[in-house]
Amino acid sequence: MEYIFLGTGAGIPSTTRNVSSAALVLPEYQGETWLFDCGEATQHQILTTSITLSKIRRIFITHLHGDHIFGLPGVLGSRSFQGAETPLTIYGPKGILSFIEITLKTSQTYLRYPLEIIEIEDGMEIKVPHFRIKVALLEHGIPSFGYRIVEEEKPGSLQVDKLKALGISPGPIYQKIKAGELITLNNGTQIHGADFLNPPKKGKKITVLGDTRPTASLNMLVQEADLLIHESTFRKGMEEKAKKHFHSTNIHAAQLAKDAKVKNLILTHFSARFLEEECNELLSEAREIFPQTWLAYDGFCFTIK
Amino acid sequence: MEYIFLGTGAGIPSTTRNVSSAALVLPEYQGETWLFDCGEATQHQILTTSITLSKIRRIFITHLHGDHIFGLPGVLGSRSFQGAETPLTIYGPKGILSFIEITLKTSQTYLRYPLEIIEIEDGMEIKVPHFRIKVALLEHGIPSFGYRIVEEEKPGSLQVDKLKALGISPGPIYQKIKAGELITLNNGTQIHGADFLNPPKKGKKITVLGDTRPTASLNMLVQEADLLIHESTFRKGMEEKAKKHFHSTNIHAAQLAKDAKVKNLILTHFSARFLEEECNELLSEAREIFPQTWLAYDGFCFTIK
Repeated sequence: MEYIFLGTGAGIPSTTRNVSSAALVLPEYQGETWLFDCGEATQHQILTTSITLSKIRRIFITHLHGDHIFGLPGVLGSRSFQGAETPLTIYGPKGILSFIEITLKTSQTYLRYPLEIIEIEDGMEIKVPHFRIKVALLEHGIPSFGYRIVEEEKPGSLQVDKLKALGISPGPIYQKIKAGELITLNNGTQIHGADFLNPPKKGKKITVLGDTRPTASLNMLVQEADLLIHESTFRKGMEEKAKKHFHSTNIHAAQLAKDAKVKNLILTHFSARFLEEECNELLSEAREIFPQTWLAYDGFCFTIK
Repeated sequence: MEYIFLGTGAGIPSTTRNVSSAALVLPEYQGETWLFDCGEATQHQILTTSITLSKIRRIFITHLHGDHIFGLPGVLGSRSFQGAETPLTIYGPKGILSFIEITLKTSQTYLRYPLEIIEIEDGMEIKVPHFRIKVALLEHGIPSFGYRIVEEEKPGSLQVDKLKALGISPGPIYQKIKAGELITLNNGTQIHGADFLNPPKKGKKITVLGDTRPTASLNMLVQEADLLIHESTFRKGMEEKAKKHFHSTNIHAAQLAKDAKVKNLILTHFSARFLEEECNELLSEAREIFPQTWLAYDGFCFTIK
């Protein structure tokens, strides 16, 4: 799995950071791609990657501020213009449906593919092939949500050496063993498939948060995630400002990552006030609390191992 | 006056041409700037120019296709975000009002400046300081309009040599003469100010067309323009395709420019099917009919003399 940042700035675009969007690319599932937020010019940013619009199967919107949604009509229209006929599902707060309907209707954009739009609510759980997604309301002045993406467990691999030691050679029987069935061998011996499987492999857990200030609802959403994407509109020493504007600092994010025992934290959504040098200081400050912190930039690709 | 192209591609953005937008910059009127169409990422393109959002006083939308309007909410929001308090007026076909209202409302974008939205109609005439703007309906499947911008005549300059020969030295009296008043000199002689003025200087005429196929309504709009901006989605030999999709070819544009005795023609809105080499051929074909033809590219700045 790869998480690719398409826009990492807050509020308005600059020449170095576009407004919010990121892509989760799933090579293990036929390259299916999910977007998280879709600020203006997301389709332009995609042109600089290997992502194709037709591979985008789901788009998750965290909240309805313009820098997170104004690229949506363009992505939808261009996906159709390029001939995609595969379905697309969009998840977002109440209001996303009418926004999409009006923008497509005004521009007389007709889609060649089935479009499903799901308005999310706090506590919702979404089941899609291979994943469950938990939705929780954050604190941002307007409804802003976090998504916890949990990949399903993968069955344990076969203990081939153990099977061979019993004289059981590879063949169709391996499928049955892998399915955990009770099997009678040619010599009359019975074996339980489950006894020849390694422990199931846990799925990945990724938490993507919308803009928010620190809030209790984060803990459940973030717990032991392999990757946490957290906004850092402000930095150490600007806690009051962050609270007032319903945002977080790098320190808030690092402390949460530490408390919730996540594996990796990526900071994003930087105010244009920060020059790149200051962004590096912001990273150092966060790493003092949580060493496995990374700084997003447009085009940054993080492999989730 | 300068006409700067911000996006010159048709339908969808590419790495070399963004979707439609252009700016008319008026240094002779305090740098006031007008936009013509506002495709997605227009604000991003503006970042690469010397244009500031606060200087944008008017935005003219030719039609409501997404590649001409999806950048509007972003420009409006960022203009406010940057602190502009000067008024902005938007002109566009019926539907532009609800598009802007819904996108701003959904994203909870509050503007610090007065925004006026005027839904245009065929034959409308708009009077703004220093300019009259004529609006005409074109032929594009959905309502698409052309704008003829006519600068007002500037009063002729004073014939200073002639005044000096009569012994009339520069001073407050020159203002009265310039206003064309009847003036009694100290020696009792009466002079008519109007007799000492050069002929008034004609204002510039600029015609910006929305997407269209050739139609009779173009002639009035285009006649003797100093600059004609014309789409060229298709090229010579693709006339049937152009007609079917309500677009024009380079040949249509060049013939119109010739017939209407315009001074300069700029072709824009090129289909992504044309590589840059082919765009040059497209220019050569047009110049065979109308030599004063130019090819737009993103960032192209044309000075209207």
